[in-house]
Amino acid sequence: MEKGYIQVYTGDGKGKTTAALGLSLRAVCAGKKVYFAQFVKGMKYSELNAVKFLDGFSMKQYGGSCFIYNNPTKEDIDLARGGLDECAEILSSGKYDLVVLDEINIALYYKLFTVDDVIKMLNNKADGVEVVLTGRYAPPEIIERADLVTEMKEIKHYYTKGVKARVGIEK
Amino acid sequence: MEKGYIQVYTGDGKGKTTAALGLSLRAVCAGKKVYFAQFVKGMKYSELNAVKFLDGFSMKQYGGSCFIYNNPTKEDIDLARGGLDECAEILSSGKYDLVVLDEINIALYYKLFTVDDVIKMLNNKADGVEVVLTGRYAPPEIIERADLVTEMKEIKHYYTKGVKARVGIEK
Repeated sequence: MEKGYIQVYTGDGKGKTTAALGLSLRAVCAGKKVYFAQFVKGMKYSELNAVKFLDGFSMKQYGGSCFIYNNPTKEDIDLARGGLDECAEILSSGKYDLVVLDEINIALYYKLFTVDDVIKMLNNKADGVEVVLTGRYAPPEIIERADLVTEMKEIKHYYTKGVKARVGIEK
Repeated sequence: MEKGYIQVYTGDGKGKTTAALGLSLRAVCAGKKVYFAQFVKGMKYSELNAVKFLDGFSMKQYGGSCFIYNNPTKEDIDLARGGLDECAEILSSGKYDLVVLDEINIALYYKLFTVDDVIKMLNNKADGVEVVLTGRYAPPEIIERADLVTEMKEIKHYYTKGVKARVGIEK
């Protein structure tokens, strides 16, 4: 079996979740099985429809109905921890070729679980599984553990011009 | 009709074409029509299979069978210029909601056409069309003209460890 690596997409720029979606599409195109876990997010994004189009693509959200801006609620914490347990199981099973842990860095930023929990999960993954961790503020321990890290850096953003997130583009 | 913006993904990091693929997937999930033009590239990447999965997604390559490392051949130039004409037509027609001009910055870097040609094409696009330009070395005129620019910055890459591009992950 081909060895799977650990990839991180972090930084303040646009394109982290989007790149993870693109990687999922490419993997499906090559006949691979993909599990796409969204931490923190529970909103009904367009990409949830991807399961209708893509064979071998599964997606699940482990977040509340709105993004966390202040202190996470008990529901936020419970959802995230349940997600972590489920993803740990999926990663060690080797049932999927690619596992995306979308916004897991944000879950860490809000201390919904610890970086040690995530490192342990990564250490226990089946050898052939490729893993992608996304979200701003990737902690140094995750960057150290990863094989590939890309920072998406915002050079210019239309949000500053007042453009709101649009269906099918940002969400 | 909603206004379409001009996005650029540039930089030396991984995830530029991948993010453009992810944006295409999200757009298709929202019922939008997507045209994905690949400049410079003519190799049989996994993502060419995306047309089998995604409704309203079209893809065409305007490159030779191998990537340009030295001087472009006459074939490289002809393919790229033909692509530019076709994409200019597509952009002004408004037939697609999202048009990706993948690796167009590389085509500019190799002077397969001029930055003025590209700016003219962008100025003539139908108002509602969202455009994404990808590739390293985005020239200043393109960054100036764009509404959103993300630099994918390489923090750590497994290529330096000798990992080769893998089917379904990088290609």
